[in-house]
Amino acid sequence: MTNASICTIGDEILIGQIVDTNSSNISRALEEIGIKVTRMLSIGDDRREIIDNLENELRTNGIVIATGGLGPTKDDITKAALAELSGSRGYVENATQLRIIHDILSARGLDVLDINKAQALVPDTCEVIPNRLGTAPIMVFRFENGRFGHPATLYSLPGVPFEAIGALPDVIEDIKRHNQLSDIFHKCVMVAGMAESALSKLIEPWEDSLPEDMHLAYLPNQLTGVRLRLSIYGGDKAEEERRIDERFAALEPILGDRIYSHSDDTLQNAIGAPLRGTGKTLSAAESCTGGMISSLITSVPGASEYYLGSVTSYAVAVKRQVLDVPGEYVARYGVVSSEVAGAMAEGVRKLTGSTYSVATTGLAGPGGDEWNPVGTVWIGVSGPAGTTTVKKVYKNDRKRNIERFTCAALDELRLYILNDLRSGK
Amino acid sequence: MTNASICTIGDEILIGQIVDTNSSNISRALEEIGIKVTRMLSIGDDRREIIDNLENELRTNGIVIATGGLGPTKDDITKAALAELSGSRGYVENATQLRIIHDILSARGLDVLDINKAQALVPDTCEVIPNRLGTAPIMVFRFENGRFGHPATLYSLPGVPFEAIGALPDVIEDIKRHNQLSDIFHKCVMVAGMAESALSKLIEPWEDSLPEDMHLAYLPNQLTGVRLRLSIYGGDKAEEERRIDERFAALEPILGDRIYSHSDDTLQNAIGAPLRGTGKTLSAAESCTGGMISSLITSVPGASEYYLGSVTSYAVAVKRQVLDVPGEYVARYGVVSSEVAGAMAEGVRKLTGSTYSVATTGLAGPGGDEWNPVGTVWIGVSGPAGTTTVKKVYKNDRKRNIERFTCAALDELRLYILNDLRSGK
Repeated sequence: MTNASICTIGDEILIGQIVDTNSSNISRALEEIGIKVTRMLSIGDDRREIIDNLENELRTNGIVIATGGLGPTKDDITKAALAELSGSRGYVENATQLRIIHDILSARGLDVLDINKAQALVPDTCEVIPNRLGTAPIMVFRFENGRFGHPATLYSLPGVPFEAIGALPDVIEDIKRHNQLSDIFHKCVMVAGMAESALSKLIEPWEDSLPEDMHLAYLPNQLTGVRLRLSIYGGDKAEEERRIDERFAALEPILGDRIYSHSDDTLQNAIGAPLRGTGKTLSAAESCTGGMISSLITSVPGASEYYLGSVTSYAVAVKRQVLDVPGEYVARYGVVSSEVAGAMAEGVRKLTGSTYSVATTGLAGPGGDEWNPVGTVWIGVSGPAGTTTVKKVYKNDRKRNIERFTCAALDELRLYILNDLRSGK
Repeated sequence: MTNASICTIGDEILIGQIVDTNSSNISRALEEIGIKVTRMLSIGDDRREIIDNLENELRTNGIVIATGGLGPTKDDITKAALAELSGSRGYVENATQLRIIHDILSARGLDVLDINKAQALVPDTCEVIPNRLGTAPIMVFRFENGRFGHPATLYSLPGVPFEAIGALPDVIEDIKRHNQLSDIFHKCVMVAGMAESALSKLIEPWEDSLPEDMHLAYLPNQLTGVRLRLSIYGGDKAEEERRIDERFAALEPILGDRIYSHSDDTLQNAIGAPLRGTGKTLSAAESCTGGMISSLITSVPGASEYYLGSVTSYAVAVKRQVLDVPGEYVARYGVVSSEVAGAMAEGVRKLTGSTYSVATTGLAGPGGDEWNPVGTVWIGVSGPAGTTTVKKVYKNDRKRNIERFTCAALDELRLYILNDLRSGK
């Protein structure tokens, strides 16, 4: 197995000003093609440090991916350090990148200054992969056996996350072309509505029955549930796919509708996808989730096709006047109750005229009320098949409770729509 | 200056399953007391790797902070590695941590198993700082001059982010007690409504006039604007505070109301704080921001005191029927227009009866419409002083456009309230 190391360069990460998200994105992309990341490193904008650390990583890894330190200002000295490290005797201009620099700056109405043009200059020891999303090119330095005791390649990527992500497919392609990688084959399913620990217990017999060459990974996320991924190294692709499909098929009777997708997906996508082209629509009424359900639903491009809108009814008066929640429900059962959650869902459905609606009322914290502990949420879902409500209790801080409430509400809405579309056909 | 290195331990970071946020939190806390972080490192759950890497970091740094690998399962082998590294001859039980373990598990209704009790065992070479938020104690290993050529201390913290953050104050206290740190004094102001580059240009003369011993840092954030921080090392605390206050006072005529706080703060806090106890209230009407404004306002504990709620009017029909936006505005000016933004703000204010309201209508992307390019937003603010609207254009992808729209809308609302409270007294 080829090993890799990831090195982020820049004082802004070392002083904690920004969180490094590039390393995990790069790591996931490498893992998909079967390359193991052995270390991640963050160092400052210091020429000596850059050279020493990258040499050290190249000594123990076949692939080193560096990001950052490629901006036009004098703080960014990665390129000079790479020139020295690779024994460059001068810089050459990359025509493709120069054209991109002109295009980007003129689209922003800016003049192309000498410091901008200089970004198209690269050490004569590297190959260039053009960066179409920014001004700094991707540089590839290949070292023969002799230098580090084994063949090694150093990739230098821009530090701006969306440019680094944009560069990844080309870098991965280059790695595949230049390395004899043992084939790896992955497939995954997304599971919602269960904590990782409960899921692991439930599918233990299935997991134990997996053949030795199949590897299972749990990839949990607060807002999208657990991604279960099966991997096999080597072998025939069609045969591997068939074998993995067979295993996932055996998982379906165990998990049923808890599986919401057979690719890397989100609940808001899984909710929207079956509604497209049907004319059926959605709305939301939020109390404790404060707008996060709506925010996630509208994060999907094109959500306006099926999403009508929402009411965040933080105040009781808004619940009553805008959503038409009966005052006696609030008085008799409390704001955090099945009755209020159901009435909110019905109220927003009537208000917007949507096919389906979801509602939340709960206590994110700090502090509970006289009826319920902090972390309690009532979720209501309404639609052609009537209104259902469910209660969940979590034990986190305010921020994480709001996220858990949101994820649970999206999942309840998804299950309702799923059943309705099945029976309604 | 004392140097530090931060090392996260755990396969889940190396494979990109989770993003490391501990390192930046720890780094910021160290920087506040004048300790420079020279490297950050992520390594896997491998005993030899842990020992070799930590020894290497201790050789070049007076302080090494490790996080992670302390869970109860067999994958987590940090403690055994630290025992070996420190030459421990056995484990001792920490009574305080054992009591905490019992308390935490019984609160969750769980039995205390042997693997739980084992978490209170620590190598006899370390001191313990109890971890009140989790089961794994914080371990402190102090090494004399001889071992690494200088005195060095290794702190081992749990990897769960909220436990690591919770442990930081005690760790920082311990570092201050055991190191002769040159005093450092910081103060900051929060600035909204300007990009970092424009801000830097505007305050350049002020920045150039700063005395040599004062250091300025720009700490930008997509949702809260730019934090400007002034630092001085050494000297008398009262005198330093007076000098920094004097400089920030000189900044006020330049930036005026763009400064929204004199501590590390958020726009949603700055909006809510002056409303508490006044009986004045807020509401929001969101189109392109999809619920994010409401979500941020309600992220503040106690926001229900002044926040009534919002309408996300994604569909034109919801804008018309719920928010009472005149149909001819939509037909004549388009949905993304000053007229619609203003009518949305007025509509939600009337609907909820709030004192103030904010509204957004725009094109987050992908794709613009026949009147406006992608990235355009109209923001409306309404209140006792009437309704104002403003247009902004950004050039990002959907996700970042939504964040920029949200930040701009919160800032417009803040400025409106500020002026209204000033004139209304």
